[in-house]
Amino acid sequence: MAETFESQSSYQQLQAINDALSSGMYVHVRKMLHHMPAPDVAFMLESTPAKTRAVLWQLIDPEFHGDVLEELSEDVRNGIIRQMMPEKLAGALEDMDTDDLAELLRGLPDAIFQQVLQSMDEQDRVRAEQALSFGEGTAGFIMNTDTITLRPEVTVDVILRYLRLKGEIPEDTDAFYVVNRHDKLIGIVPVIRLLTATSDMTVEELMDEDAETIPVDMPEGEVAKLFERYNWISAPVVDAEDHLLGRITIDDVVDIIREEAEHSMMSMAGLDDEEDTFAPVMKSTGRRSIWLGVNLVTALLAAMVSDMFEETLSQLAVLAILNTIVPSMGGVAGNQTLTLVIRGMALGHVSPSNRRWLISKELAVGALNGIIWAVLIAGVVALWKQDLALGGIIAFAMMINMLAAGLSGATLPLLMKKMKIDPALAGSVILTTITDVVGIFAFLGTATLLLMP
Amino acid sequence: MAETFESQSSYQQLQAINDALSSGMYVHVRKMLHHMPAPDVAFMLESTPAKTRAVLWQLIDPEFHGDVLEELSEDVRNGIIRQMMPEKLAGALEDMDTDDLAELLRGLPDAIFQQVLQSMDEQDRVRAEQALSFGEGTAGFIMNTDTITLRPEVTVDVILRYLRLKGEIPEDTDAFYVVNRHDKLIGIVPVIRLLTATSDMTVEELMDEDAETIPVDMPEGEVAKLFERYNWISAPVVDAEDHLLGRITIDDVVDIIREEAEHSMMSMAGLDDEEDTFAPVMKSTGRRSIWLGVNLVTALLAAMVSDMFEETLSQLAVLAILNTIVPSMGGVAGNQTLTLVIRGMALGHVSPSNRRWLISKELAVGALNGIIWAVLIAGVVALWKQDLALGGIIAFAMMINMLAAGLSGATLPLLMKKMKIDPALAGSVILTTITDVVGIFAFLGTATLLLMP
Repeated sequence: MAETFESQSSYQQLQAINDALSSGMYVHVRKMLHHMPAPDVAFMLESTPAKTRAVLWQLIDPEFHGDVLEELSEDVRNGIIRQMMPEKLAGALEDMDTDDLAELLRGLPDAIFQQVLQSMDEQDRVRAEQALSFGEGTAGFIMNTDTITLRPEVTVDVILRYLRLKGEIPEDTDAFYVVNRHDKLIGIVPVIRLLTATSDMTVEELMDEDAETIPVDMPEGEVAKLFERYNWISAPVVDAEDHLLGRITIDDVVDIIREEAEHSMMSMAGLDDEEDTFAPVMKSTGRRSIWLGVNLVTALLAAMVSDMFEETLSQLAVLAILNTIVPSMGGVAGNQTLTLVIRGMALGHVSPSNRRWLISKELAVGALNGIIWAVLIAGVVALWKQDLALGGIIAFAMMINMLAAGLSGATLPLLMKKMKIDPALAGSVILTTITDVVGIFAFLGTATLLLMP
Repeated sequence: MAETFESQSSYQQLQAINDALSSGMYVHVRKMLHHMPAPDVAFMLESTPAKTRAVLWQLIDPEFHGDVLEELSEDVRNGIIRQMMPEKLAGALEDMDTDDLAELLRGLPDAIFQQVLQSMDEQDRVRAEQALSFGEGTAGFIMNTDTITLRPEVTVDVILRYLRLKGEIPEDTDAFYVVNRHDKLIGIVPVIRLLTATSDMTVEELMDEDAETIPVDMPEGEVAKLFERYNWISAPVVDAEDHLLGRITIDDVVDIIREEAEHSMMSMAGLDDEEDTFAPVMKSTGRRSIWLGVNLVTALLAAMVSDMFEETLSQLAVLAILNTIVPSMGGVAGNQTLTLVIRGMALGHVSPSNRRWLISKELAVGALNGIIWAVLIAGVVALWKQDLALGGIIAFAMMINMLAAGLSGATLPLLMKKMKIDPALAGSVILTTITDVVGIFAFLGTATLLLMP
């Protein structure tokens, strides 16, 4: 984990900017920012507390506002654009890629959105409205429209002359798309193939006819899986009649992959995916309190189960002392299973044909773990409290709870997906409630049956 | 979350293969596998229980073994190659990309590794040994050596003639590298620039001289960050004297990004990153038991804290009932902070210059959340148990524990990184231990002081 040259220099830049800001050397900061590439400026903004961020933003040359906005995460970007004048914002959006433009406009409150749209020039407005017409999170929403199309009968020689005349090819172009006279996609020609072809060959001879296409309404998660599985750099997007609409490039897909993978981790801890590390205190407190509220209800539920055994607890204080061990172990074991199944589902590995196998497997793991830890805890408790019966009781409860953990860890995400609830968001809370209630009930219940007169 | 055409058809294929396997129609399965692209075959293997996986593997045409191995995740791949004959394995590795070859060889037990190396032909062995000479997880380890190099004085015309003669260009080539007569990299020429250039221009006129390069010993995580930040498709890898060694392409980087993002989620649940969802029961039980063992020690520690207050608990059973609420809330709040800081560190946003701000912020969030939930729980307990003093005591303990949660959630990952311990792996356990101990101690301690005679 050694810090390399690169991140060292990023941190040094950040430190230098912070130092200059706190000594009020705004002109100096402005100059430093001016010499940085847009992604680096975005990095500085992301790594800065929200208040200072507003000051920094003012010091960036307005000409680069659009480039920097493109690179920011949603939460940070929304914070900034809500404070910008609509006309200025419209100006910043001028040269933005279609996909970034659509995403950004969606983050705006309705009133500002209308103002920004009206401040745009005709061409940009049409482009924005078109991109917004596709559903959020679909292929249409993340595609770009800067494709170069060829006709099948044209020769390599003609194409090369045309390209030299044009003088510029969109960034990241790795293929040209071949369309017929009805604008339907009939093939693709990889850029490198033009370089090895002889000048009299036609596009028809060069093109791949069975190239894969992406339907415009495919969810972005599916798009990402395709790119990942087949190692694509770009892919054409088509409508239901195979008309070419645009292309999706790997750089946008990388963001989706990162977001999807982070989504599970953040959700399982009860955080918003886009939560900004440097958001103001009030905003963070508000966001996190929902989850804490849910957990309070869960904790009270567990307390109520204990409450049912008040009589037992008042006579045997030792039970109160050991009462947290079984629920705790069940929670950890259940969360292991839950996490594994959620990841398996995200990767598409869990399917109807192997579901049953997976549930049996996790039950078997639960049973085995149950035996191991039941024996161990029985020994520890029997030695510590000099009470064999107590050891037996906690071992039995452990066994029951480990099975409950394996079963609910494996079935909960599958059930929740069927009910269209995000398992990463709610799975962990429901699971812990189950393992708490089952654990306490099994332990105190058995103890009451066996130890109470 | 609608299932689309793509995954539907993957699931249907999987179902069809499973059905055919269980009815013993091996010839049919062999034929189906033969018509699938390698990534799809890999997907089938990943989604299949370990036992059936071995059968499936036997039915794949040995000619495609190498292609399929390239696409498998580490855990699944290692399971397969450990059962292959060394000579067969050497055969499968013949046409493999250098980076995949090195990764795969590293997964082998020493004895088999030597046998495989000896079964390889001269050229492959040299290639493998070279790739293995770079440290695992560095740029050198994930690079490919299939670059096309140009000399600065050559003209476009000559290059195009050369490429036509050569007839083939490595997949995903988006740039040619310009080297001087000492093989030092002096610039790059994007492929698309060759298409728009006139035929008498020289490489020197076309090339970018200030293109970014990657040092061969840069950690792969840093490489991934650069690709992500600057939207690269590929980048040249050089040694300390700027000699061109190879190139890294985005498809390998995508895997690293996915693995890095998953690493935190899996580690926080106490799972191995590469844990295979369909591993055999014994293997899974063994792997998960380490974490359960650590948790047992933690749970016993919390029980020992309760044990210190046995006298109090035996006289006031109500304390036993409420004893889990404060630790539980502290655990959730602490884990929120911990997760956010770990993600911030992974993205590189947390740095020496904003560390102090971040800790103060999380303390403030903890204090605010402490006040909110202290007031709420005081009300609930006062109403439920008709005891104002008890409400006050639990509120005080909640306040203390929320502060402890915010402070340890923010400082633990920073401390652990300094001590070179992975915060995702151990952070959550240590944090929960702290919030359990502080929560129980604050609650039962205050109760003992105020309520006991």
